[in-house]
Amino acid sequence: MNNDSKKAVVYVRLKDGVLDPQGITIQKALVQMGYKDFLSVRSGRFFELEIKADSADIDRKVDEICSKLLANPVIEKFEVEKK
Amino acid sequence: MNNDSKKAVVYVRLKDGVLDPQGITIQKALVQMGYKDFLSVRSGRFFELEIKADSADIDRKVDEICSKLLANPVIEKFEVEKK
Repeated sequence: MNNDSKKAVVYVRLKDGVLDPQGITIQKALVQMGYKDFLSVRSGRFFELEIKADSADIDRKVDEICSKLLANPVIEKFEVEKK
Repeated sequence: MNNDSKKAVVYVRLKDGVLDPQGITIQKALVQMGYKDFLSVRSGRFFELEIKADSADIDRKVDEICSKLLANPVIEKFEVEKK
């Protein structure tokens, strides 16, 4: 991590109503392993971005790369957290 | 989401020093797409757990399922956020 850099984290999750087979599988596995306290599991991905400190217009760029590369806007939504 | 439930989020990331081929690939793709402001990308996964409100000893159980199922403790570390 460079001191002359900013950081942002992008969280990508499935839109509400979109089936999450991975989450369902994990929840079923938990029940089989004896963990009955977990009612549901939803899975997601995140990306930690290291950004040049002198970058201009970075909010727009992060939004763009989310739509174009990191998330599938048809079934996923994303959230950006700047640090 | 049931009103009688608690929520926890588990964040799983690769340990420092472990190579992240997905992150490297994304960073290279960004450069090729013309986004030169992104110095590095690290990828991770998260899991949103819905937990029965009357569950006992839930911290221990969440730690257990992280080590046993959600993360690979050899190369990954996890972090639990209660909501």
